[in-house]
Amino acid sequence: MASRSESELAFLSIEQAARLLRRKEISPVELVNAALARIERWSQGLNVFLTVLADQARRQAKRAEREIRRGNARSALHGIPVSLKDNFWTRGIRTTAGSKILADFVPQKDSDVAAALARAGAILLGKTNLHEFAYGITGENPHYGSSRNPWAPDRISGGSSGGSTVAVATGMGFASLGTDTGGSIRIPAALCGIVGLKPTYGLVSNEGVVPLGVSFDHVGPLARGVGDACIMLEAIAGKYPRGTMRPSHRPLRKNRPRRFRLGWPKDFFFERVNPEIQAAIEAAAKKFQSLGARIEEVPLPHLTDSVDRASNLVVAEASFYHESQGYYPSRSEDYGDDVRGHLEWGHKLRAVEYLGGIEARRLVQADFDAALSEVDAILAPTSPIPAPPIGERQVRVEGERETAVRAELLRMTRPSNLTGLPAISIPCGFTSDGMPIGMQLIGKRWGEAPLLAIALAYEEATEWHNHHPALS
Amino acid sequence: MASRSESELAFLSIEQAARLLRRKEISPVELVNAALARIERWSQGLNVFLTVLADQARRQAKRAEREIRRGNARSALHGIPVSLKDNFWTRGIRTTAGSKILADFVPQKDSDVAAALARAGAILLGKTNLHEFAYGITGENPHYGSSRNPWAPDRISGGSSGGSTVAVATGMGFASLGTDTGGSIRIPAALCGIVGLKPTYGLVSNEGVVPLGVSFDHVGPLARGVGDACIMLEAIAGKYPRGTMRPSHRPLRKNRPRRFRLGWPKDFFFERVNPEIQAAIEAAAKKFQSLGARIEEVPLPHLTDSVDRASNLVVAEASFYHESQGYYPSRSEDYGDDVRGHLEWGHKLRAVEYLGGIEARRLVQADFDAALSEVDAILAPTSPIPAPPIGERQVRVEGERETAVRAELLRMTRPSNLTGLPAISIPCGFTSDGMPIGMQLIGKRWGEAPLLAIALAYEEATEWHNHHPALS
Repeated sequence: MASRSESELAFLSIEQAARLLRRKEISPVELVNAALARIERWSQGLNVFLTVLADQARRQAKRAEREIRRGNARSALHGIPVSLKDNFWTRGIRTTAGSKILADFVPQKDSDVAAALARAGAILLGKTNLHEFAYGITGENPHYGSSRNPWAPDRISGGSSGGSTVAVATGMGFASLGTDTGGSIRIPAALCGIVGLKPTYGLVSNEGVVPLGVSFDHVGPLARGVGDACIMLEAIAGKYPRGTMRPSHRPLRKNRPRRFRLGWPKDFFFERVNPEIQAAIEAAAKKFQSLGARIEEVPLPHLTDSVDRASNLVVAEASFYHESQGYYPSRSEDYGDDVRGHLEWGHKLRAVEYLGGIEARRLVQADFDAALSEVDAILAPTSPIPAPPIGERQVRVEGERETAVRAELLRMTRPSNLTGLPAISIPCGFTSDGMPIGMQLIGKRWGEAPLLAIALAYEEATEWHNHHPALS
Repeated sequence: MASRSESELAFLSIEQAARLLRRKEISPVELVNAALARIERWSQGLNVFLTVLADQARRQAKRAEREIRRGNARSALHGIPVSLKDNFWTRGIRTTAGSKILADFVPQKDSDVAAALARAGAILLGKTNLHEFAYGITGENPHYGSSRNPWAPDRISGGSSGGSTVAVATGMGFASLGTDTGGSIRIPAALCGIVGLKPTYGLVSNEGVVPLGVSFDHVGPLARGVGDACIMLEAIAGKYPRGTMRPSHRPLRKNRPRRFRLGWPKDFFFERVNPEIQAAIEAAAKKFQSLGARIEEVPLPHLTDSVDRASNLVVAEASFYHESQGYYPSRSEDYGDDVRGHLEWGHKLRAVEYLGGIEARRLVQADFDAALSEVDAILAPTSPIPAPPIGERQVRVEGERETAVRAELLRMTRPSNLTGLPAISIPCGFTSDGMPIGMQLIGKRWGEAPLLAIALAYEEATEWHNHHPALS
């Protein structure tokens, strides 16, 4: 058995690791120990994990080792250490949702996806930090500390799935599950240089996930590569409608798309974008052309007017949840300022404004339906700005007036929460000061299989995903 | 050709009339003239029609006469005079929605159902009076006068489809179309002793209908018998899902149900009911047993708590429409007091209250789904009270405290607007002072065919539908 360094083990792809496990060249115990060593060393400084399950993970690794060596590998995830954002219920393990209100909450049962990962044989390393109640996009948390960007620890990781993202980016486990209500998987993935996938709304069960906005909440994987994201999705995906293709990492590599059409949005997605990010997306489009893609301009005429109007829907749904649970307003002082502010906004929002949001949402959906009847996927930046410094509230993009960091970060991801369409963020470059840049590909409803195939074609033709942050 | 009196012609069933038309024993011109004579004599006193299309109807009758005599009868409705509630768009014919705001509105195109009736060959007599914007259940209208109950003109007809109902009850046409957002077809049908059908939500197009609450609005027929209601439904129904039976008046009479199960609701529907109405429904249940029905108690445990909560949804949707059209609040003084009050309520309603209504609606739907998995239809009163005097605002039911007339009238019909399930009101008796009593049968989704068959079995075994009000 060749001896591999901790970081070699920690940055294997899941496919590579699964192959080595089956060949008995490595053991799940080694993988878990490598991940735990990195957690031990860097989790606290970067505020990554809220709960580490070291003993349980080591026990599970030994059992997985025995099972795999007997030839009983359950799936590509068997023996692979992963983490979960701390808003997924885990039986007997506290689930804080990054809040003070649920600081001591220990669920009696697993979320559906936690159970699905366990059935697939994945090993749970622990529960990761997040924006309080997943209700924010920066990953700054007043109760547990802000998760830090491993490429520049004075900058935000992005959120709300910040801990999960940083864990994956730094080799503290191979993959993680996050939730995405306005961009909470894709934004931190882009800011930290990994892959984040928000699947089609309804594909993955939300049962046992602390809700934010029920008609916008999506569970999805964070991983270091498209193939790994696919393996995670396979383990958690529910039923597809008849006639659609279920994603699978095996045919993914074989069925490389030869000719495909990518939509280049004329409106909305290229308004006020950091020029280095703009250049990276344009370079990615050229790369796609060299891989057989035809790039076509697609109009999305209603987005500029409608996306903001529809954001009323999330705040109302969030306030409804927190009020019906009795958390708000009775425990108002236990929330951080930003979340309390959002809940107050949702509390006051009028029903006719909510219905205006429903109408706006319909317009956004119609725009995407029309565009995606012409192309296989739409290409866009994931974020118009790279990760800003922790604590920064205002940002200036392209010489215009200052705008709120929160609004800028959400601007490009929110449309896919309104439509429920699958969207993936993949690494596509770095800024001149070394911060990762993410590209978003938005696919057709239930179209994860072709979307992942297109993303993989790009990944295989580039090297961005092979860069990892240097930790000290 | 036997000579028939005006009232003999006016009170034929559509099936009878269609047969006589095909045999050339009568002419559409006679039918239209009989209806117009009755409109001339009684419409103004009872406030039935807002627009009468005498010349157009006579012209259409002559054309229909020629077509039918050539053997080209298009459907059972060909040559049959009918009316439309004045909230259905009619091309070139003013459509007031019973409001001052739309007093001079002349649509450029027909509503889908107006066009469907014209294609079937029905002859439009005119547009009927309604509660302002269909936003009320009594039929009292401050702009055009209140439609009066033909059984006692000092009493309400019920609404909002009051004019349509009175027209049908008095032989001013064979049938009419109404809209039902909280009971606006079934309530006036019950109070005036005719048949009113609210079909499954989504079965009949709402295109070109002035909306009230878009997720509650249903178009449906008012008629003097179940067979006639079926003929009207056939003309306007959209597509049924595969595997469901499309209603048709012909097999209806042949496929009489032999054994069927009727649900007797334990909760909600028999709280505080006028004792004469209670007795009539109990007698109807016995009659059903003699026709082969098994009566089973069904629980509907959430209705009492949830139906009122869910009524928030309608007021919000109504206010959203009136605000987005620019009618409210800018033309506030042009509304009647009651409608202005509802719009003000909807304007102020908070989004979290709206979402509470959505949750309540889900509970009501679950109750009915469970009950209707056990029985073929649910039996209930249509209204817990007979028609009250015009102008009365409070009512005392069964010795308890006084309650609002509006709330009492809506109480038993509103659940089916929340669920979208088909519901029919058919005559089942009279109070000791001679006011009609209506029985409601609530069926399974897309189950109009079996629901109408059950209703027809009762109708054929009773004589209630053969009583008509004496007009002076």
